[in-house]
Amino acid sequence: MTHITRIDSNERLSRVVIHGDTIYIAGITASVKGDIVAQTRDVLQKIDGYLATAGSDKRHLLSVQIWLKDITADFAGMNSVWAEWAPKDALPTRATGEVHLASPDLLVEIIVTAAKI
Amino acid sequence: MTHITRIDSNERLSRVVIHGDTIYIAGITASVKGDIVAQTRDVLQKIDGYLATAGSDKRHLLSVQIWLKDITADFAGMNSVWAEWAPKDALPTRATGEVHLASPDLLVEIIVTAAKI
Amino acid sequence: MTHITRIDSNERLSRVVIHGDTIYIAGITASVKGDIVAQTRDVLQKIDGYLATAGSDKRHLLSVQIWLKDITADFAGMNSVWAEWAPKDALPTRATGEVHLASPDLLVEIIVTAAKI
Repeated sequence: MTHITRIDSNERLSRVVIHGDTIYIAGITASVKGDIVAQTRDVLQKIDGYLATAGSDKRHLLSVQIWLKDITADFAGMNSVWAEWAPKDALPTRATGEVHLASPDLLVEIIVTAAKI
Repeated sequence: MTHITRIDSNERLSRVVIHGDTIYIAGITASVKGDIVAQTRDVLQKIDGYLATAGSDKRHLLSVQIWLKDITADFAGMNSVWAEWAPKDALPTRATGEVHLASPDLLVEIIVTAAKI
Repeated sequence: MTHITRIDSNERLSRVVIHGDTIYIAGITASVKGDIVAQTRDVLQKIDGYLATAGSDKRHLLSVQIWLKDITADFAGMNSVWAEWAPKDALPTRATGEVHLASPDLLVEIIVTAAKI
């Protein structure tokens, strides 16, 4: 029988879904208003938290999509925060594209797939 | 040996691919022309059908991406239909972004990953 | 214990991550500058190479996202190259949307999930 664990659900979505050895995390945006550095930091800190609730951590990322509102303006800033955060010897696959988000204040949204430890 | 089941293939893609306990569904768009409510209803009804052909249902969604042509205009309308359709106690992860689609009439495309029952 | 294999990592990402029976490939863009046909050919040739390093091939694709800088101009050109490349009897799910990429020269980025053989 398939076992699915759903964590931190609101009225639209679950923030974390665990299926077998795979952890899916919803597209995460910042709660802080601020520039790309502040928002990316907030998003990655939230992702650390969601990974922890799923019993995993950033050394077990599999695949990441990064959506930026303005890739020309914000690619470098996002990457600078990513470089501080992402473990150099355990990097996921990644794809980054320009995608407008649900609110005009939002500059970045990150979607993670990770592995259970 | 890896077993992959491919369902409802056309000349470019399969609508459903099953691998192990995971079901991948292609990006689904509406066949009806109409507003976001009509198109989202049509897309979700098609997804119900594809899940059924894979032996699953909407209570086993894992992760969803929703692409909207105009997120400012259509986020609320899509969400109203989503709220009617998605099971409150079995919600997937979700990410919604503004992405223009292959035809200018298309307002929404939904990409689903689900679990076998 | 979860086993994750990471292949061809640079300072930001791994080109290939293998977890269980699933292979994730990073969003791949062209190294050649050129039109959509030239860029799509280059991307798919690179993907053939990444699949080979993971011990798989294009007959084991599960799910693909295709991001085009200009879907109106380039959907047909991308599809013509895709049709030559993708095995008609083993097609993955696919979703194609308009997404601007990290450099203005880039016309297409393709993100693949595949299965181990």
